[in-house]
Amino acid sequence: VIDPNPDLTFTGERFRVHYTLSGYGEDDARQVAAFICVEQTIEFPHELVPPGALHDLMVGQVETFTPQGDSRFGVVISYASEAAGMELPQFLNVVFGNVSFTPGVRVERFELPPRLAGAFRGPRFGRQGVHDLMAVYDRPLTCTALKPLGLSAGQMAEMAYRCALGGIDIIKDDHSLSDPPFCPFRERIPRCVEAVARANRQTGYRSLYFPSVGGRMEAFHQKVAFAREAGADGLMIMPAFSGLDTLRMVAEDDAVGLPLIFHPGFLGTYRRSGDFGLSPFVLHGQLSRLMGADITIFPHYHGRFAPPKVECQLALEGTSTPMQHVKANLPAPAGGVRAEHFEEMRDFYGWDAVFLMASNLHRHGPDLVESSRRIRAVAEGLVAGA
Amino acid sequence: VIDPNPDLTFTGERFRVHYTLSGYGEDDARQVAAFICVEQTIEFPHELVPPGALHDLMVGQVETFTPQGDSRFGVVISYASEAAGMELPQFLNVVFGNVSFTPGVRVERFELPPRLAGAFRGPRFGRQGVHDLMAVYDRPLTCTALKPLGLSAGQMAEMAYRCALGGIDIIKDDHSLSDPPFCPFRERIPRCVEAVARANRQTGYRSLYFPSVGGRMEAFHQKVAFAREAGADGLMIMPAFSGLDTLRMVAEDDAVGLPLIFHPGFLGTYRRSGDFGLSPFVLHGQLSRLMGADITIFPHYHGRFAPPKVECQLALEGTSTPMQHVKANLPAPAGGVRAEHFEEMRDFYGWDAVFLMASNLHRHGPDLVESSRRIRAVAEGLVAGA
Repeated sequence: VIDPNPDLTFTGERFRVHYTLSGYGEDDARQVAAFICVEQTIEFPHELVPPGALHDLMVGQVETFTPQGDSRFGVVISYASEAAGMELPQFLNVVFGNVSFTPGVRVERFELPPRLAGAFRGPRFGRQGVHDLMAVYDRPLTCTALKPLGLSAGQMAEMAYRCALGGIDIIKDDHSLSDPPFCPFRERIPRCVEAVARANRQTGYRSLYFPSVGGRMEAFHQKVAFAREAGADGLMIMPAFSGLDTLRMVAEDDAVGLPLIFHPGFLGTYRRSGDFGLSPFVLHGQLSRLMGADITIFPHYHGRFAPPKVECQLALEGTSTPMQHVKANLPAPAGGVRAEHFEEMRDFYGWDAVFLMASNLHRHGPDLVESSRRIRAVAEGLVAGA
Repeated sequence: VIDPNPDLTFTGERFRVHYTLSGYGEDDARQVAAFICVEQTIEFPHELVPPGALHDLMVGQVETFTPQGDSRFGVVISYASEAAGMELPQFLNVVFGNVSFTPGVRVERFELPPRLAGAFRGPRFGRQGVHDLMAVYDRPLTCTALKPLGLSAGQMAEMAYRCALGGIDIIKDDHSLSDPPFCPFRERIPRCVEAVARANRQTGYRSLYFPSVGGRMEAFHQKVAFAREAGADGLMIMPAFSGLDTLRMVAEDDAVGLPLIFHPGFLGTYRRSGDFGLSPFVLHGQLSRLMGADITIFPHYHGRFAPPKVECQLALEGTSTPMQHVKANLPAPAGGVRAEHFEEMRDFYGWDAVFLMASNLHRHGPDLVESSRRIRAVAEGLVAGA
């Protein structure tokens, strides 16, 4: 019924996606695997596609099918790189578009072959680049967030100044700080930039300021440009709202050229849904790197979200698993981190990480400069080999 | 410790979010409710915020707490409209940003007060507007998708022509059709527009063509403009990739002015994760309308995804639940729909709906014009009161 399309050619390159299917007997799981192969590609009655390239190459292929006990099956499916269209949206669409609605399908990891990987620049700075910016090569970086929502731009700048004076490495806007009338973006960013620069002149440190850029998309690109021109050292973006492909676009834009933080707000269901969704390895690791994020925030196993430790291990591994030329990025465990955790965190995540601590920084005492100094001192006590 | 911000004023207007907390005992559930109030707003140690407006009004407030049995609790939390910043991203951030990482938290619905609702235009056309475009007021609309991925632009146009000749009301690109070299966007759209217009001249019908606009965000706005200038009748957008706020931006753009279809690909984990995420009422209904979608696609309870019937009921209710001036939009159940289901679907969804049938249209037989005529005839047989 379907005639061949002469413009449809295949290089033969295929990428592999590792799924776990849960809650199925073996026969059903094999059917789900076959369903994924068709649904994620031609999404068309396979029997109506005549033999040939379209039938044989565009459709996904089950590479391995491995019972894992307890009604779980590991399935590796390969897809033609052509199906992914050499772009992030269609790549993610093939990996998990429609089957995000199929019960018990979880994406564990993916493998990128060279040609498809070539469609992505990946993190501009990556781990090494961020360390170069800070001139810090032997200890975890410290990070804090400006909050609470409700303060004025001047108050946020004063807070940024004090944190920088105490030596916090990275000072970012809280993700709730969009552009409210009581703390306008165009006032907040230059004031915080100036405050951190002033502190740096006093300390000799190189603290960085990362505003949160988001809000109404009509103004998004203007805000990115404004923040850059105002002297922001980097940007934090929430892909859930601004778009999974928007962070990538900003990361690859040479006119921006700043390091980026991926904030995972609103994306938790991809991760916390047990047998559904994306593994922490994919969400916080591989995907954040395809998007070009240099720093990827995720919940630490101690704290307000307290995911199982193994999930943090997966997130960590995803930040550095080989993906062709795509650089490793920096894991930034967060969400209730305390200074008492730093040593254990260094042992768990390694020194090449960012420890994000906000609420608990304020719990250290009323003097934010002194609290920040103590945090930095703890981090400096964790130098490699110490 | 925190001084008052003189620019922080509150109108007193608050919006309410209905959550279900699952898997908790009552004491823990109350703690989670209190946690949400702080985490979703100031995200700061509450005890360090001095009494006053910030402490009393910015933080969420538990309005009701209702045991529902089986370790489940219904909790209604109100937030100041000011916390939502009069924009979709920050509104969603308050509703479910960080707590998307908290186990057992599900958003069931939200209530929009007038001032906050005023930040949203909602669907430009809505149910009535789409019916006006079609001049069809008494039966479900039929819809199909151009596929499989792999065909050329010419083949897609020929398929669109045949479907329109048979009288399918809405012909859309499959969501996998981004901009592949074998079926380029800038060739596909004008050819499909011409094909559907040619069929309309022959039939006297008003079939509409909705291209899928997505892909790399660098070209997104150019593609929207191109599709509009090429004569597309509407656009389909995938908010997961292009951004939850991007669909809204396109919907509110008078220079575009086209009806929009919300495709939920990659968003399934929000819905299918059981006790986590967003209810179908929110995801497919309320949220799709805040984004300005005129037609909202979701999986029908018969077919390839087969969610529980109650979930389709919730999605349906969300498309028309009162939200101030925000118009109702059209539910478009999909994913394995068959013509034999139409009558039952009319009974379930009402006549004011779009029945999306793609794969099974091709299973009706080799003559796509004839198959499309039969589909239209079935829909025409379902006129209100028939």
